[in-house]
Amino acid sequence: MRNLDPVFNPKSIAVIGASREPGKIGHVITKNFLDGGFIGNVYPINPKADEILGMKCYPSVMDVPSKIDSAVVAINSRLVPGVLKECGEKGITGVVVISGGFSEVGNHKLEHKVEKVAEKYSLNVIGPNCLGVLNPAARNDSIFLPIYKMGRPKVGSISFISQSGAVGGCIIDLAARAGVGMAKFVSYGNASVVDEADLLEYLADDDQTRVIVAYLEGVKRGRKFLKVSKKITKHKPIIVLKAGRGKAAAEAARSHTGSLAGSHEVYQAAFKQAGIIEANDLNELFDFSKMLDYPVCTGGRIAIITNGGGTGVLAVDAAEETGLKLASFSKQTEQKLRKLLPEYANATNPLDLIGDADANRYQKALDIVMNDPNVDIVVVIVLFQTVGIDSRVVNVIVKAQETGKKPIAVISTGGEYTEFHRRIMDSYGIPTYSSPYEAMRAVSKFVEYCGK
Amino acid sequence: MRNLDPVFNPKSIAVIGASREPGKIGHVITKNFLDGGFIGNVYPINPKADEILGMKCYPSVMDVPSKIDSAVVAINSRLVPGVLKECGEKGITGVVVISGGFSEVGNHKLEHKVEKVAEKYSLNVIGPNCLGVLNPAARNDSIFLPIYKMGRPKVGSISFISQSGAVGGCIIDLAARAGVGMAKFVSYGNASVVDEADLLEYLADDDQTRVIVAYLEGVKRGRKFLKVSKKITKHKPIIVLKAGRGKAAAEAARSHTGSLAGSHEVYQAAFKQAGIIEANDLNELFDFSKMLDYPVCTGGRIAIITNGGGTGVLAVDAAEETGLKLASFSKQTEQKLRKLLPEYANATNPLDLIGDADANRYQKALDIVMNDPNVDIVVVIVLFQTVGIDSRVVNVIVKAQETGKKPIAVISTGGEYTEFHRRIMDSYGIPTYSSPYEAMRAVSKFVEYCGK
Repeated sequence: MRNLDPVFNPKSIAVIGASREPGKIGHVITKNFLDGGFIGNVYPINPKADEILGMKCYPSVMDVPSKIDSAVVAINSRLVPGVLKECGEKGITGVVVISGGFSEVGNHKLEHKVEKVAEKYSLNVIGPNCLGVLNPAARNDSIFLPIYKMGRPKVGSISFISQSGAVGGCIIDLAARAGVGMAKFVSYGNASVVDEADLLEYLADDDQTRVIVAYLEGVKRGRKFLKVSKKITKHKPIIVLKAGRGKAAAEAARSHTGSLAGSHEVYQAAFKQAGIIEANDLNELFDFSKMLDYPVCTGGRIAIITNGGGTGVLAVDAAEETGLKLASFSKQTEQKLRKLLPEYANATNPLDLIGDADANRYQKALDIVMNDPNVDIVVVIVLFQTVGIDSRVVNVIVKAQETGKKPIAVISTGGEYTEFHRRIMDSYGIPTYSSPYEAMRAVSKFVEYCGK
Repeated sequence: MRNLDPVFNPKSIAVIGASREPGKIGHVITKNFLDGGFIGNVYPINPKADEILGMKCYPSVMDVPSKIDSAVVAINSRLVPGVLKECGEKGITGVVVISGGFSEVGNHKLEHKVEKVAEKYSLNVIGPNCLGVLNPAARNDSIFLPIYKMGRPKVGSISFISQSGAVGGCIIDLAARAGVGMAKFVSYGNASVVDEADLLEYLADDDQTRVIVAYLEGVKRGRKFLKVSKKITKHKPIIVLKAGRGKAAAEAARSHTGSLAGSHEVYQAAFKQAGIIEANDLNELFDFSKMLDYPVCTGGRIAIITNGGGTGVLAVDAAEETGLKLASFSKQTEQKLRKLLPEYANATNPLDLIGDADANRYQKALDIVMNDPNVDIVVVIVLFQTVGIDSRVVNVIVKAQETGKKPIAVISTGGEYTEFHRRIMDSYGIPTYSSPYEAMRAVSKFVEYCGK
C-alpha cells in the first residue's frame, strides 16, 4: 500500500513553478497556501525569481536547505520529468503534477518518462493533468481555482476522488455552497502512477473519511480496484459515478483522458459485486454522499412528517418508487399524535402536520415519531413558505437528530429563504434535498447499504 | 367556457376578511395588493373596521358604491356561502376562496352550499381551500405568503395550475429564485366550482401563456380534462405532475384533498393519448417547463459544447439515456473548428473547448456550431470554476441565442458564482440546469413535443 500522507498531510511543501504574476497558476497555488493558512512551510521554486509573495524563492528543490515532504508541480510538461528526478533526489515522496500535456494530448512518451522517474525514486505522483489536492483539516489546498469561483468546503467526513478536474471542481464547489464537509479531495488526472485503487486503499484507512465518493471515466487496474473496493464497502460506503456509459460517451471519454471506458454492463455487474453504490448523475453523487455520511446503520422503515399535504403525497410516491417501506406507527404513537393535531388530521404515516404547523408542533411530532420503535428513519418535509414556519424549526430538527439517534433527512423546496435554511441543516450533518424524489433516492441507497 | 378574466385580470377587487392585524391572512393579502402595485381599486371588506391600511373599509360588498370585478375571501368557512351570495347580488363574477374547512376536512355539506350559490349566481369560484391567484403582468397577487418567504416571479410565459397550495407555493418560489417568468398562477384547492379543465381552457386562449404546467392529485371531470388537453397540446405544451401514483400515495392524496386518485396506469395512458408531457418530480416539472418555453419547434439533433471534458462525457451519457441524437458536424464546421482549437483538441461533437476556454472561444465556437445546418439544439456546458471563464460568457450565450434562432440549454454545476450566472441566463429565457442529466431530460421532452 502506498503511503500518501506526504500528499495529503505534508508538513512542508514546495511549489514548483511558483510565480510572481497574478494570472499564473503557480502564483494562485502559492497564494492559496498562504491565504488558506497552511500551517507547514511553503517553498516557492522558480529559477527566475528571488522572492515570491514575501517568501524566499529557490531555483530548485535541491537548493532548499530543509527537508520537504511534498511538491506541487505547475510547469511546462517538458520540464516535468527532470523536476521529478530532483524531487526524488531531495527525498520528497509525494508529488502532485498539475501540468497537462501528457497522454491526454497523445504525448504518451512524456508520460512514460514520468512513470520511470517515479518508479526509480518511489515517488507517489498524483496526476499529471490534474486539479490538485484538498485537505481542509490540514489546510492543504493545491487547487489553482480562485476562491470566488470555487468555494472551499469545511472539514467533514466525505472524501472525493475525481479523475476529471472539471467534475472535481464542481463537486468541491457544490459541497462548499451546501455546507457539506469534506475529509479529503483529490483530482488524480491521468492516474499515471497513483491510481484509483491506491487512493481507495489510502482513504479506507483514513480515520477522517466515513464515505468515499469517486468520479471515474475508466479504471486502470480493474481487478485491483474491485478487490480493494469489496474489502472497503464492508465498513465504509463507496459511491461511484462512472462516465462513458453509452457508446458515444465512451468514445468521448477515451479522447478526453486516454482511458478505455469498457462496457458499462461489465462495470455495473462488477460494482454491484463489490458493494459499490452507483450514481447516475453528478447530483445523485452528491445527494447520496450526504445521506450515507450518517455514522451508523439503521433499518429501513421510513416515517414522513410534512406541513404540506401535496408534498407529503409526492414523498410517498417517491418512497414507493425507490423501493422504500413506510413505517406503521405504533398504537401509542397514534394516540399521542391525535392529541397533538387538529381533529380532522390523520395521525398516520405520512404525518401531515397541516399548513399552519409551527416549530412547536414539529418538535412535539418529532419527539413522538423519533421514539416510535417501528420507525428507523425520519424524512421531514418543511415548506418554509408557510405562515407558521420560521428559523426555529431548524433548531428543532437539529436537536431531534442529536438526541433521537435516528437519521433524519429533510425535504425543502423553494427559493432564497428555503435555501438559506437548508444550508444550515446540511452544515449540521442533516442531509437536505430540494425534492421528494431526490431525498427518497438517497435514503433508499442508505437503506440498501445498511441492509447488505 | 368560463370567463375567468375577472379572476386573473380584475380592474377592481374586494378583499373579504381584510384585517388590521398584521398576523392575519386578510391583512397580508390586502397589504400585498398595495405593496405589489395593483393598478385597480382595492376594497377591504370587514364589518368591524372603518379603515384598513389607509383605505376605507366596508361592512359588505353590498355597501361598496362602485362596480367590483372580483373578490378574495379569507374568512371563517361557515360564513363563506353567505358572503358568496352577496358577491352574486353585487354582480361579482370571479371569487377566490382562500378559506379552508370544507371537503378537505370532511365538511362536504358546507362545500355543497358553496356550489349551489355559485351555480345560482354563475359565480366562478376558485377554491375553496386554496393559496390564491398570481398574475405578475396585472400585479394581481392574492397569495397570503409574505414575500421574504416566497418570492414573486417576473412576467413571463409559463402558467402554472396547482391543486395543492403547498406545492404551488414551492413552484412560485422556485421560479422567482431562478429568474423564470410566469404568465398566470392559480392554486385551485378543492376545485369545487372551477376545476382543472376550466383552467386549461382559459389558459389555452390566453395569449400570455406559452406553456401550461399542472400539479394534480386527482381530476374531477376526467373526460373533459382529456378532451380539452388533447386540443391544447396541438399548439401549447401541457406538462403534468400527477401525485398519488402508488397505492399508499393515492390513499394519502385522498385524505388530503378528498379527490379520488385513480390508478396511475390509467392516468399515464390517458396523458400520453392527450399529448401531455408527464413529470415525475417537482424538479422535473420545473426543468421541463423552462425548456418547453422556447417559442418555436425544432428538430432533435443535439450539439454539445463544453469547457470540461468530464462533464462533456456525462452529457453524452445523459443524451443517450434520454433517447437524444447527437448531431454530426458538417465538414465545413469541423474545418472552422480545427482552426479555432488547440491542435490536440477534437473538432467533433461533443466539442471540448478545453479547460482554458474563455468567452471569446465560446463565442467563435457557438457562431460556428449554431450555423451548422446539421445542428438543431445546442447544449452549452459552462464550468464557471475554470480559469478562463468570467461573466462575459453569459453575454456571449444570450447573444448567440438571440441571433442564432436555435434553442440553447446551459449546464453549469457549482456554487454561488455559478448560481449567480445561471440566474441571469434563465432570466433571459435560456434554460439552465445544474447537471447533464437534468438538462438532457428536459431537452428530450422538448424534442418529443416538437416531434409529435
